[in-house]
Amino acid sequence: MKLTSDAKGVYVIAPTPFHPDGRIDESSIDRMTDFFVKSGVTGITVLGQLGEAPKMEHAESVSIVKRVIGRVKVPVVVGVSAPGFAAMRALTRDVMDAGAAGVMIAPPNTLRTDDAIAQYYRQASEAIGADVPFVIQDYPLTFSVQMAPSVIRRIVTENPSCAMLKHEDWPGLEKISALRGYERDGSMRHISILTGNNALFLDFEMERGADGANTGYCFPDMLVDVVRLSKEGKRDEAHDLFDAHLPLIRYEQQPGPGLAVRKYVLMRRGVIASDTLRKPGAQLTAPARAEVDYLLSRLARKDPRARV
Amino acid sequence: MKLTSDAKGVYVIAPTPFHPDGRIDESSIDRMTDFFVKSGVTGITVLGQLGEAPKMEHAESVSIVKRVIGRVKVPVVVGVSAPGFAAMRALTRDVMDAGAAGVMIAPPNTLRTDDAIAQYYRQASEAIGADVPFVIQDYPLTFSVQMAPSVIRRIVTENPSCAMLKHEDWPGLEKISALRGYERDGSMRHISILTGNNALFLDFEMERGADGANTGYCFPDMLVDVVRLSKEGKRDEAHDLFDAHLPLIRYEQQPGPGLAVRKYVLMRRGVIASDTLRKPGAQLTAPARAEVDYLLSRLARKDPRARV
Amino acid sequence: MKLTSDAKGVYVIAPTPFHPDGRIDESSIDRMTDFFVKSGVTGITVLGQLGEAPKMEHAESVSIVKRVIGRVKVPVVVGVSAPGFAAMRALTRDVMDAGAAGVMIAPPNTLRTDDAIAQYYRQASEAIGADVPFVIQDYPLTFSVQMAPSVIRRIVTENPSCAMLKHEDWPGLEKISALRGYERDGSMRHISILTGNNALFLDFEMERGADGANTGYCFPDMLVDVVRLSKEGKRDEAHDLFDAHLPLIRYEQQPGPGLAVRKYVLMRRGVIASDTLRKPGAQLTAPARAEVDYLLSRLARKDPRARV
Amino acid sequence: MKLTSDAKGVYVIAPTPFHPDGRIDESSIDRMTDFFVKSGVTGITVLGQLGEAPKMEHAESVSIVKRVIGRVKVPVVVGVSAPGFAAMRALTRDVMDAGAAGVMIAPPNTLRTDDAIAQYYRQASEAIGADVPFVIQDYPLTFSVQMAPSVIRRIVTENPSCAMLKHEDWPGLEKISALRGYERDGSMRHISILTGNNALFLDFEMERGADGANTGYCFPDMLVDVVRLSKEGKRDEAHDLFDAHLPLIRYEQQPGPGLAVRKYVLMRRGVIASDTLRKPGAQLTAPARAEVDYLLSRLARKDPRARV
Repeated sequence: MKLTSDAKGVYVIAPTPFHPDGRIDESSIDRMTDFFVKSGVTGITVLGQLGEAPKMEHAESVSIVKRVIGRVKVPVVVGVSAPGFAAMRALTRDVMDAGAAGVMIAPPNTLRTDDAIAQYYRQASEAIGADVPFVIQDYPLTFSVQMAPSVIRRIVTENPSCAMLKHEDWPGLEKISALRGYERDGSMRHISILTGNNALFLDFEMERGADGANTGYCFPDMLVDVVRLSKEGKRDEAHDLFDAHLPLIRYEQQPGPGLAVRKYVLMRRGVIASDTLRKPGAQLTAPARAEVDYLLSRLARKDPRARV
Repeated sequence: MKLTSDAKGVYVIAPTPFHPDGRIDESSIDRMTDFFVKSGVTGITVLGQLGEAPKMEHAESVSIVKRVIGRVKVPVVVGVSAPGFAAMRALTRDVMDAGAAGVMIAPPNTLRTDDAIAQYYRQASEAIGADVPFVIQDYPLTFSVQMAPSVIRRIVTENPSCAMLKHEDWPGLEKISALRGYERDGSMRHISILTGNNALFLDFEMERGADGANTGYCFPDMLVDVVRLSKEGKRDEAHDLFDAHLPLIRYEQQPGPGLAVRKYVLMRRGVIASDTLRKPGAQLTAPARAEVDYLLSRLARKDPRARV
Repeated sequence: MKLTSDAKGVYVIAPTPFHPDGRIDESSIDRMTDFFVKSGVTGITVLGQLGEAPKMEHAESVSIVKRVIGRVKVPVVVGVSAPGFAAMRALTRDVMDAGAAGVMIAPPNTLRTDDAIAQYYRQASEAIGADVPFVIQDYPLTFSVQMAPSVIRRIVTENPSCAMLKHEDWPGLEKISALRGYERDGSMRHISILTGNNALFLDFEMERGADGANTGYCFPDMLVDVVRLSKEGKRDEAHDLFDAHLPLIRYEQQPGPGLAVRKYVLMRRGVIASDTLRKPGAQLTAPARAEVDYLLSRLARKDPRARV
Repeated sequence: MKLTSDAKGVYVIAPTPFHPDGRIDESSIDRMTDFFVKSGVTGITVLGQLGEAPKMEHAESVSIVKRVIGRVKVPVVVGVSAPGFAAMRALTRDVMDAGAAGVMIAPPNTLRTDDAIAQYYRQASEAIGADVPFVIQDYPLTFSVQMAPSVIRRIVTENPSCAMLKHEDWPGLEKISALRGYERDGSMRHISILTGNNALFLDFEMERGADGANTGYCFPDMLVDVVRLSKEGKRDEAHDLFDAHLPLIRYEQQPGPGLAVRKYVLMRRGVIASDTLRKPGAQLTAPARAEVDYLLSRLARKDPRARV
């Protein structure tokens, strides 16, 4: 099953669970994978930035991907961003052989012109193979690469295998409108747009034309519901649910400690056994942990299903 | 009245109101200044980033400062960041003569080492005069300069006239804890810490030891209440009020359109006559305007005093 | 006399001479201006990066420009880059009134997409007036803005008043070839291309199609000769002269101490009275000074006219 | 044989030779390795930035290292910089097992404070093992990380296995003086300082206290001679030789095309069979190739041994 430009719903970004000593925790992977499916996700993205991909050796990466793919029926997308095309091609080859639906590629932070960005994606697609569906990761805050809507259109047009945009520019609402405008005026074919950035603007992103979310917020069940309510036109209900989670969304969206928050909540929810990050990784301090506990207790009052 | 390290409460960041043709709108300045005082702010900061300072000529800047100072009894702090010390000195001289309480200085985005940052503030203080109280603006997202807590300690220690930190690092909670820890262990004298970043973390920043807020969110009255409730130990009440505003806070915190949102709401509240930004400035699109309207209508249901 | 796209030869970048106490040294300005004219320059650019422009107050800037203009017949271009259009417009107005031939504008280092760069120059041109000839300063090393040749073409096409490119990209030879190629294929009108970067590649830049140099190397007389020899097709002679100066060119091209080297040599040549830089400015250390002395002694053996 | 802080002379940065179709060219590796030894180098660094390391898969990297080590008696240092410690550790383990003398580590370009830089090297050393000698690569132009001399001192002091600094800051002469000053005043133990940056300042770097060069200029035999002459106190002879090469050094030092120039000259010298770069890699244009040919013809007249 290959990733297509019709992808919709929630492609959850999966963290990588570790034992306290840093080894990969395979039974937590299984439990987490089942939890995601039960939460209603329509896809799973592994080895993204928040999957601690750079801390994994190649063989570990491949084994994680295989484990997840072997357990689910939904498409699995794999982050293959790398400083060079050799490593990108090697990982792509191995995970596509294992049954991945496609790969996600972020731009290296040295790209500075529209031409350079477009060229990079052409070369990347050539490196991994023109038949491998790929996702553009547009995350300027982390990658320092700004992609104007017209550059995304160029990438989409020049690369038939480009199926999806992981949209996490900030501010980003007008970018969704611009891209959907290109589709309406016929200057760009349709692609799937799923939004990231820990869902901080998911409420309005759906209304601007996003197809769903591609992020790893610790309550993916809520993401599924917000996407569904928004699609059904239940605007107030979507916002009510979203707003209840926003204090925690905001807290988890912090770069650095955010991933520790996510793992801590997933641990408290019983999904993974330990909130360990591999080095180097920010640890939650005691005050931060207490703040998350407080946010969870407040959340439980507003969204009863969010009791942990 | 000089700014001191005992500053507390809300130092609101004042936008600069313009007529639709770009001229400074003096009657809106007056109305806005009165509104701020009535909202309970303890200070006003003018000509910050969101005061569109770089779009003003020197004489305009000075006249705005004089107008605000002439109208209030609270301290007025003036942003004097400039690409060179000559312009910084000239503006500081003129606004201090006019009765400003102190100035705010952001680091130029070329600084890359701890030594370079510390040296810059020594030189800046020498340029403006060692008797002029100044505020460090620590806003890495915009200025690309990362200040470790130990660098802030160095600046505070080397410059007796450093009175305040405008804290807007992100993530930033641990930085407040670290600085207050320095005060407790005696390695740094006390300074005022007021937080910015459109108050996105004001709830927890207060609990970590901040003295208040130094930001321009379009409901400064709410900031005043959250700071007060937090100081009084009314934690749940502080968070309830804060959470009611968080969807709009988040929306206004977007770099670029954020200032347009702020001015639009202040216009809708009757505080300023027009939401015009001087060029170059992002305009709110029609969809964005409708989104803000929707957020305001939702807010009015949760915080009745926030009806506009 | 307005700057046109036919500009050729050497537009020397003028440093600003100061007295040891930091005041502007007017008699050194006069002597330096005469020296430039005698050296054969075809234009003078004042208040560029290496003219310490950001350290000058507005009135000082204008008085320097007037002094230089009053003394020469060649066109004088003025750097007006500023963090906002208000200051840029004010300075442009005053210097054009005083008889400047045009202005030079560098992009702010926040620009990240082709669209943003093109928009900036449209807005800048609108701010200063469509009748004011301007020079694009393309210096990515300092300004962190990368302009692809196609972006420069857009700026040239969208702004009839764009007369010149100060080319200092690095590497930059292919960019000159690309731009001249646009002229040949009719997709861009002709502009003047003068090269900066302390002339580090002037030898080959001339051969790629540059019209001359726009830099402040401490032997502008040599720049004039290299440009002339190259235009006359005396390739080996041009390179011989250039190579004799290359060790010093390279030394002076260092960002930071470079300007101190330039002023030190101009002082040793008797052109300016003091090599003082305004704060903040790098001072030459004793070892650096001795290294420059050694380079000068070696240069004098290779280029007898370069005896100081 | 482990790398020690007494390292001296020229540690040449080895490019990786490819066949025109992109496969590794093993016989060129052998010929190049022999050429380096014959040129008098005292060490070889493989898989640095200009060894196209990011374009190699892990197994390829290890095989190259083994091939070079198996052929020489001089120490071989291996670049192991990677986006995560897992890949860094894996490569270090494999190359140290194969007999490497040490590894070279560049900082990731996200580091922004002195504390973060020092912490990174502690964690890296812990990841690769405290017994593995390592080289700090200080190359701000490419990595965007500025290390003050005091930070380098911290790294050296906190990590006994830090043996060498690959110095390629720019400007960088004062940094060498500062570090040697630390050694003299007893605040830092001695380390080897070899300089990079394509030797653009090797003449003066030696005089400031460098122990030699760690770069890959296409005439490593010249580097060996300049280092030797400088050590022998033959200042004028060292500069004469250096100056003869400076026009080509400068040309090869251009980021991007520089590596293509280097390979092209090595091919013309008969050292490697093809000047192919793996994708993505800048190709020399025809005009650039002609420029290098011209520089070589001029060089041959000044340094007869440099005839190719």
